[in-house]
Amino acid sequence: MSKPFVFEKPAGMRDTLPAFYQKNEDIKNIIKKEMESWGYQFIQTPTLEYHETVGEASAILDQQLFKLLDMEGKTLVLRPDMTAPIARVVSSSMKNVAYPLRLAYSSPVFRAQQREGGRPAEFEQVGIELIGEGTSSAEAEALALMTEVIKKSGINSFTVAVGHIGFVQELLADILGNDSRVAELLRYLNEKNYVGYTSHVKELPLSSIDTQRLLKILDLRGGIEVLDEASALTPNNKGQQALEELKTLYKLLQDYDAAQNIVFDFTLFSHMSYYTGIVFEGYAAGIGAPIASGGRYDDLLSRFDRKAPAIGFAIRMDYFIEALGSKNDTIKKQCILFTPERRKEALQLAKSKRSEGGNVVMQDLSGVRNVDEFSKRFDEIHYLIGRQQGEDL
Amino acid sequence: MSKPFVFEKPAGMRDTLPAFYQKNEDIKNIIKKEMESWGYQFIQTPTLEYHETVGEASAILDQQLFKLLDMEGKTLVLRPDMTAPIARVVSSSMKNVAYPLRLAYSSPVFRAQQREGGRPAEFEQVGIELIGEGTSSAEAEALALMTEVIKKSGINSFTVAVGHIGFVQELLADILGNDSRVAELLRYLNEKNYVGYTSHVKELPLSSIDTQRLLKILDLRGGIEVLDEASALTPNNKGQQALEELKTLYKLLQDYDAAQNIVFDFTLFSHMSYYTGIVFEGYAAGIGAPIASGGRYDDLLSRFDRKAPAIGFAIRMDYFIEALGSKNDTIKKQCILFTPERRKEALQLAKSKRSEGGNVVMQDLSGVRNVDEFSKRFDEIHYLIGRQQGEDL
Repeated sequence: MSKPFVFEKPAGMRDTLPAFYQKNEDIKNIIKKEMESWGYQFIQTPTLEYHETVGEASAILDQQLFKLLDMEGKTLVLRPDMTAPIARVVSSSMKNVAYPLRLAYSSPVFRAQQREGGRPAEFEQVGIELIGEGTSSAEAEALALMTEVIKKSGINSFTVAVGHIGFVQELLADILGNDSRVAELLRYLNEKNYVGYTSHVKELPLSSIDTQRLLKILDLRGGIEVLDEASALTPNNKGQQALEELKTLYKLLQDYDAAQNIVFDFTLFSHMSYYTGIVFEGYAAGIGAPIASGGRYDDLLSRFDRKAPAIGFAIRMDYFIEALGSKNDTIKKQCILFTPERRKEALQLAKSKRSEGGNVVMQDLSGVRNVDEFSKRFDEIHYLIGRQQGEDL
Repeated sequence: MSKPFVFEKPAGMRDTLPAFYQKNEDIKNIIKKEMESWGYQFIQTPTLEYHETVGEASAILDQQLFKLLDMEGKTLVLRPDMTAPIARVVSSSMKNVAYPLRLAYSSPVFRAQQREGGRPAEFEQVGIELIGEGTSSAEAEALALMTEVIKKSGINSFTVAVGHIGFVQELLADILGNDSRVAELLRYLNEKNYVGYTSHVKELPLSSIDTQRLLKILDLRGGIEVLDEASALTPNNKGQQALEELKTLYKLLQDYDAAQNIVFDFTLFSHMSYYTGIVFEGYAAGIGAPIASGGRYDDLLSRFDRKAPAIGFAIRMDYFIEALGSKNDTIKKQCILFTPERRKEALQLAKSKRSEGGNVVMQDLSGVRNVDEFSKRFDEIHYLIGRQQGEDL
């Protein structure tokens, strides 16, 4: 086992330098303000939780959890998501606050990665949870808010894909009957491995009609017309009901003026195992992974003894910022370079510029070794060096 | 080993509910804005670092570190402070940015606690580091900024105690010669155990003059006159030089209009082992622990191969908020309670109120089980229920 270099960081860990930090803050503030204006209240939960409570309730695979032992030998995890911890809070410290509850968060989450993966093991999510409401109004609100947040942040070219886990599960069960065969096909969808799905379906001992029905699922992507195509695939009551709900949802989104970016996609099947109904993902042009995702999870709260339907989504900040592309700093970096005899003058100038909203470094010239190098990073430098002109000697 | 209850949190871990979260955010924004206006740039480092790099460089006792193993068997720690990680960043990703560097952070840090301790194991710090400048100007800037941040946040009754680790170490070494005897006395100061210090000093085989000199240190607390009293205690050159620096610092703070809250205190001795020169702590009326603290650390950067003098401070957010006491929410919580036939009207009303800066929940009446309970938490409720008056049937 080699010793890490003095500068080395653990696998998947990143530093956020000033330029990216500022951009991330600016966008995060827009997102948070929008969520607040819809009446969502922000909370924060601890970085560490018990594995037996939040760790097991979360939808993240066990091998992706960062684990450690506390002094009593209990296993702790670094929170892998915010939905399970919020369910814990809603069922304990906030158990007397009546449903529906609108909560929000802005927080890093942790997913252990294989070293070869090279993916971030810590990343920031900003999201909401609407807990205690099972209506289409709640679904429309979540989707409309996600859409509004994306628009307000300045991402113009995006799509929100909406699927329905309940519908797909019903359809597969209707055709295959057997749970393990359903699970196997769902795994292909989850991995977005459509080639694998197709060849697997073709090997199943099914009537050609059922084979076609299973293959047809892969085509169920597009506008509102997709709901009718889906309807033709199933006589199942629950399936039909799910489609009716999606039609209602679409209508409500039109009222919100948020239907333009919606596409239906019945291949959408999240790795988050707690989702039970609609699931959705936001995609921006040029970014290969979802910039936002969410869904309905009606069974999670009962694990914490405060049963309730719920829906939520999270913005994935790093991909979100990537989607926004580069933008120049708006605030000028200023510096006042002074020598001690003009310190008071420098103080006055800094005070006045700061009160006008400027970001102003005050720098004693004697503290700078390389003035040229130091000066490079400022947009504007004010020199207060040596005796003031016209000053009495 | 008992299984944790489903709602239980690990020892020292806390949830931050909406009211406290909002207050914390509001104050944090004031603090961050002030730091930015002085030209400090915020950065973020990862939650996990290698024990052999940042863990060992940090000033936190090893038994207070949260440790875990990565997949290769290397020991990771949850960052116990931000100063050591920032030193790592300055020496690697930012190694080409010329000194002096002004960086800031706003971040949770972690300190493992004994269960019986009951102290928070995760808490938020907002702070700055001014790296690459050894002048009195840098010290004055750090202290003036800390003072300004406290004032701007609305804490009116506070004191900033300033000590000097170098001076005290020199004085003790001058009298005791022996390193282990010096370390023993410093431990009493660090623990603020002045009774223990006094009885230990009285047991030492010293001349009565030297005993008095050691006891006198405990009296070296107060205004600028304390520097002269300190001066009388030591003929040591380095000690005298430290006192001269403190006099200069005081004069500079007067120029900043930041000297009123300063008291000198030579008993101040931080547990942060990397401090080398001045150390300081901010105290607010009624709060038993420092709301802010900092000091000069001129040896830390050399551990990361980019030797430089440096100074910094951190605001401890939980104590800081406690010092501010309770304050009422300024933003009214509004709710529009609607039935489906008036959804569009509700949407229009919400949009208009949100655009005026309001925080407005839109709630479908059918999603609320207990309207009375639900309504309680809002300051203002708009009812859009049933057919609109005057509407054609």
